[in-house]
Amino acid sequence: MEFTVHQIAAMLGGEVKGEGREKINMLAKIQDARKGHIAFLSNPKYENFIYTTQASAVIVSKTFVPKKEVSSTLILVDDPYLSFTLLLEEYHKILSFQKSGVEEPSYIGSNSQVGKGVYRGAFSYIGNDVKIGDNVKIYPHAFIGDNVEIGSNTILHPGIKLYSGTKVGSNCVIHSGTVIGSDGFGFAPQADGTYKSIPQLGNVIIEDNVTIGGNTVIDCATMHGDATIIRRGVKLDNLIQIAHNVEVGKNTVIAAQAGISGSSKIGEGSIIGGQAGIAGHLVIGNNTGVAAQSGISKSIKEEGQKIMGSPAFDVGDYFRSYAVFKKLPDLNNRLRDLEKRIYGSDYSVNKSMSSEAAE
Amino acid sequence: MEFTVHQIAAMLGGEVKGEGREKINMLAKIQDARKGHIAFLSNPKYENFIYTTQASAVIVSKTFVPKKEVSSTLILVDDPYLSFTLLLEEYHKILSFQKSGVEEPSYIGSNSQVGKGVYRGAFSYIGNDVKIGDNVKIYPHAFIGDNVEIGSNTILHPGIKLYSGTKVGSNCVIHSGTVIGSDGFGFAPQADGTYKSIPQLGNVIIEDNVTIGGNTVIDCATMHGDATIIRRGVKLDNLIQIAHNVEVGKNTVIAAQAGISGSSKIGEGSIIGGQAGIAGHLVIGNNTGVAAQSGISKSIKEEGQKIMGSPAFDVGDYFRSYAVFKKLPDLNNRLRDLEKRIYGSDYSVNKSMSSEAAE
Amino acid sequence: MEFTVHQIAAMLGGEVKGEGREKINMLAKIQDARKGHIAFLSNPKYENFIYTTQASAVIVSKTFVPKKEVSSTLILVDDPYLSFTLLLEEYHKILSFQKSGVEEPSYIGSNSQVGKGVYRGAFSYIGNDVKIGDNVKIYPHAFIGDNVEIGSNTILHPGIKLYSGTKVGSNCVIHSGTVIGSDGFGFAPQADGTYKSIPQLGNVIIEDNVTIGGNTVIDCATMHGDATIIRRGVKLDNLIQIAHNVEVGKNTVIAAQAGISGSSKIGEGSIIGGQAGIAGHLVIGNNTGVAAQSGISKSIKEEGQKIMGSPAFDVGDYFRSYAVFKKLPDLNNRLRDLEKRIYGSDYSVNKSMSSEAAE
Repeated sequence: MEFTVHQIAAMLGGEVKGEGREKINMLAKIQDARKGHIAFLSNPKYENFIYTTQASAVIVSKTFVPKKEVSSTLILVDDPYLSFTLLLEEYHKILSFQKSGVEEPSYIGSNSQVGKGVYRGAFSYIGNDVKIGDNVKIYPHAFIGDNVEIGSNTILHPGIKLYSGTKVGSNCVIHSGTVIGSDGFGFAPQADGTYKSIPQLGNVIIEDNVTIGGNTVIDCATMHGDATIIRRGVKLDNLIQIAHNVEVGKNTVIAAQAGISGSSKIGEGSIIGGQAGIAGHLVIGNNTGVAAQSGISKSIKEEGQKIMGSPAFDVGDYFRSYAVFKKLPDLNNRLRDLEKRIYGSDYSVNKSMSSEAAE
Repeated sequence: MEFTVHQIAAMLGGEVKGEGREKINMLAKIQDARKGHIAFLSNPKYENFIYTTQASAVIVSKTFVPKKEVSSTLILVDDPYLSFTLLLEEYHKILSFQKSGVEEPSYIGSNSQVGKGVYRGAFSYIGNDVKIGDNVKIYPHAFIGDNVEIGSNTILHPGIKLYSGTKVGSNCVIHSGTVIGSDGFGFAPQADGTYKSIPQLGNVIIEDNVTIGGNTVIDCATMHGDATIIRRGVKLDNLIQIAHNVEVGKNTVIAAQAGISGSSKIGEGSIIGGQAGIAGHLVIGNNTGVAAQSGISKSIKEEGQKIMGSPAFDVGDYFRSYAVFKKLPDLNNRLRDLEKRIYGSDYSVNKSMSSEAAE
Repeated sequence: MEFTVHQIAAMLGGEVKGEGREKINMLAKIQDARKGHIAFLSNPKYENFIYTTQASAVIVSKTFVPKKEVSSTLILVDDPYLSFTLLLEEYHKILSFQKSGVEEPSYIGSNSQVGKGVYRGAFSYIGNDVKIGDNVKIYPHAFIGDNVEIGSNTILHPGIKLYSGTKVGSNCVIHSGTVIGSDGFGFAPQADGTYKSIPQLGNVIIEDNVTIGGNTVIDCATMHGDATIIRRGVKLDNLIQIAHNVEVGKNTVIAAQAGISGSSKIGEGSIIGGQAGIAGHLVIGNNTGVAAQSGISKSIKEEGQKIMGSPAFDVGDYFRSYAVFKKLPDLNNRLRDLEKRIYGSDYSVNKSMSSEAAE
């Protein structure tokens, strides 16, 4: 990426104060920036840096009045932080989507359709009867099984594995090592103590605008025609377990190493903390907050609950109980003191007597 | 897959009532089935669907008497649910084993033997001196190190990694991203605060009929000649950690994200819940049940125990303790009330006095 | 590997008692050793085995006096256990570093530099502008993105994924399936309930002598110029989550399935137990010990703390509280008994009365 300060100012609708023909090839923090970098100044705390920075350009507020000489070219905007964020996004998009074409060797099966602007990295594998939308980026070592469908502008990072029949929407990002569509963990116990595998014939559906971290696993549904479903806008972190027939409601966020057991339905707009676990066949209401490491063993019908613990209950109640838990040895001593006082010093003898007899 | 209704009826030992030459290419639930699908009716609750389903065929009980007209062809059997399950299994087997031959490019080292009917997907890697049994399915991006041995009818899903010397039995299924034979986590602390790696020279042995989920990791044993062992019939879910020198007893089931630390031995027929952790060098008796998220810090000699908590103890006792834990603030208040009553209202003063002096 | 007994004795500075021309191709325990193997005798408990072992050679102490005939050739050294350990290490190094050259097909982009003695396995991928030091071992299916730098003698096991810009030091070992440099989990909530991705533009820096297990994930830092940093000598186990902008201090050890949330800094020489979780934006002092499954929600300023629980506190205090937790039903009963005694048998009525009125 390389733009002039003038080009960037035009993108941001800002005004250039200075030269404007400097070439910018990176974004940086004002205290670290060097020649060729662009930085921003929003928080007055950092104002001193603008007089010493080596940044070729700095985005500042229209209302900014320098107290000393500034050697960088300035871009004047309404909101420097917002402008910098927009620039970051633009830069990231350019980076993410700069790959295109086919690196060899790569593999594509029969009867598969690939859209325009698609990148197929070396050692990527596309099975038979696959449909891939425009601008999809398939990084090296990605595996795309038979009958998979992928919407446009989706990024599949190196080494992701999509089992046959998986459907992924548009504008999704799936990070390295993530496995989608593996068999659900279903086994029927037999009389001799062995287990028989229950065939897992459903698939996984990932809707639009979903982001999934690295080394996460999402199992397929059990029956033909059924699906494990990740609704639009869901954000899953790394190393998450999503079992067969789970449904995660739209715009729900799940932090790293959490696990959802088979057939549970998670409501919309929920936030599940890291390393939390949700048992099978539950229904979790919309906008539920689950604290990290909690274990959910019952359905939560009411919306907007915040819960904690294993098994989990109201987070405020949990903290109140936990505060007493930390003082339990003291509480036990206080109880013993009372017992001594009431029953007399030979507590064990008194305790064995009936309450009436003791009187 | 495509069979006629007659062929399917013959497989199931059932009787056809209707045409019988319809072609069936999928299994479906009776409420969802369309032309070309086969469904089943077992639970009378669903009887209504049989009069409206578009299924080309429905498996029903020999004793079923339709109350209205049925447009689907029927297959009459003793137990429709069992017959459908058999069909599912057959179908799944066909799907799983339909791949064969070699896709290019693939890699095979020197002196390696490959059985009949083996599938070697594109970008699969087989090292030197490897032995692979008949009908093994090696999906794309699988890595099979030197001196690995794999029994017949085993399925290795895309991207699995088997380090050198790993042994896998027959009829196993290993899902994508799983790593077997990586170094155990063994480090010797040095005087200067650094750690020195202890060479890990053993291997991993997976016996027959074992199923392993996706992105699980099983470390090799430390010493040459020793092995981390997964006994026959074990079922491991996704994202599980099995450390060096662990042994998992036959027909034991371990749910997702559980972890077993180094050198622990898990008995036969046990069920370990999701996200549970087992410390190192323990012996866990047969038929032990470990609740999800529990932490096991001591060996469990007696068989058939059900345990929970971190550290874990009897599950019934855990629930009884946890019930009181949830009421701890109330319990603390009750205790304070008693103290006020006994010691007088100025509790903090009284408490600082000796029990005798307070009287 | 194949050495004569004489060659091994020379390596260890030991003296040969016996033939010395036997060829040794494996290390084994004295009770399991066969022809061609070398074993050691250190603990007198195992002395009996030396009279029956089939080992071609046994390493023994200079002070060892056989009580019966020994058929194996002996190597006499000062400390047999230490010598065997040295041999193990040497053997492991030879095994690890025996691969070299390039297996085809493999991929290398433009402008990338590769040192001497490097192994590039089949289906390994090296992007553009990459710098790889001498003797680096890149196993099959490894992905090395653009602008990555890797120091000398580092081993990258099959299927590891290094995103663009990752820096890995010298003498590191990274196990299969591990993902380094994936996007941090950063999303800005929008008014309509959706989340917008915050571009993740930093990288990951792994210093020298770091070992990382299988299927671990380390996210990149958020801002350009920032890094998630794993300091020299750190040992990470399998399936660990390291979020964006985390810093792990030198010589810290983290056990399997633990997770560190965004921007937390872990001190040097710490030991984090398996399945432990550390919340975001915390500072954890040097030499901290965190028990398995603990959850850390606050910074720990004092060095050398040992903590447990979720949320975690002093491990001794935790165990004292947990001991009472296990007896909570009993404690509850004791409190009820006291209440009956003080308030009278109709406790619920008495309880509703004021303390004064009850008197």
